[in-house]
Amino acid sequence: MAGDSRATRARLLDAAFAEFAEHGLAGARVDRIAAAAGANKRLIYVYFGNKEQLFDHVVERCLAEGSEVVPFDVTDLPGYAGALFDHLVARPDLMRLVAWKQLERPGATDSEAASYRTKVEALASAQAAGRVEPGIAPADILALTLALAQAWFTAAGGTGALRGADARQGADGPQSEAFTAHRAAVIEAVRRMTSTAAPAG
Amino acid sequence: MAGDSRATRARLLDAAFAEFAEHGLAGARVDRIAAAAGANKRLIYVYFGNKEQLFDHVVERCLAEGSEVVPFDVTDLPGYAGALFDHLVARPDLMRLVAWKQLERPGATDSEAASYRTKVEALASAQAAGRVEPGIAPADILALTLALAQAWFTAAGGTGALRGADARQGADGPQSEAFTAHRAAVIEAVRRMTSTAAPAG
Repeated sequence: MAGDSRATRARLLDAAFAEFAEHGLAGARVDRIAAAAGANKRLIYVYFGNKEQLFDHVVERCLAEGSEVVPFDVTDLPGYAGALFDHLVARPDLMRLVAWKQLERPGATDSEAASYRTKVEALASAQAAGRVEPGIAPADILALTLALAQAWFTAAGGTGALRGADARQGADGPQSEAFTAHRAAVIEAVRRMTSTAAPAG
Repeated sequence: MAGDSRATRARLLDAAFAEFAEHGLAGARVDRIAAAAGANKRLIYVYFGNKEQLFDHVVERCLAEGSEVVPFDVTDLPGYAGALFDHLVARPDLMRLVAWKQLERPGATDSEAASYRTKVEALASAQAAGRVEPGIAPADILALTLALAQAWFTAAGGTGALRGADARQGADGPQSEAFTAHRAAVIEAVRRMTSTAAPAG
């Protein structure tokens, strides 16, 4: 691919991410994406296909970026949850894209499913080796760890409001006391959930 | 209020819940809601105000119903999480409404904020009395407990797909092995997070 076309593709995907995060799949306008990228609308269809396929491309790209910035670390699940939390705070629109996806385009793409499967297999091996508490199934450990890392954005609709915060802006922001305490709580909760030293019942 | 008008209001709110859960706030059509309720569209404005205010009424009603069906129990947080999970499984469209709300109508209503505040205060008292692990702030315990109870619907976008399930339909459904295991995992994770018997680091 020529450099020009690679740069245009990247600009279109950046613009599409912003448009989808703001308006969702149904509300997004392909001509606004083209205008924001300074590209001909026709190129969207040439490079990516229809609007739904463009959405899938944007999701895949976020997933690939996420795996690079926050590699899954089965030897340090609390640290992984903290790093994922930081990544979401740095890009709060990611959680908006995820929410639109669940509402308007549910189901996983092939590479999404493959990425989860790899993580679940790593968790199963870690459990077999006695490094992760074996009482919770690997797929559930993964789902619950992700949920804890995302809680600030999902479950904080109310708690964020209670703090007088706007969850979309990373709530109180990375400098606040509430933010720092929440980050530590996420890490501690994952540690307690996955530690092989079980608490008494 | 006359019985007729009470019944009409209830039918309108039922129809509005279904419409908002399916299409969101921007996508919802007031005339479809009126038609589904067999009521005059004008009554929506008379009873509830504009579309945004109708949305708030629907959210408030779900919250009130939730508090009734799943009372917050600070003496049994794992049980509370399990009961909340069951409630969400029984009404999977609730999580769609919550997601639309976060995207299109963020921020808490007064009674939503009051409901959270009450729970946080109960958690703080339970911590002071030594019944809940004190190492995590009450607002974070609440947010993380809610996130764990909702994980099947939020973080399970990928894991649900991995199981070949449709998260919108309560994934594998209440009879499946994956469902039963996940429910137990939620309860166990909340127990470990809130138990006063801390695991070794």
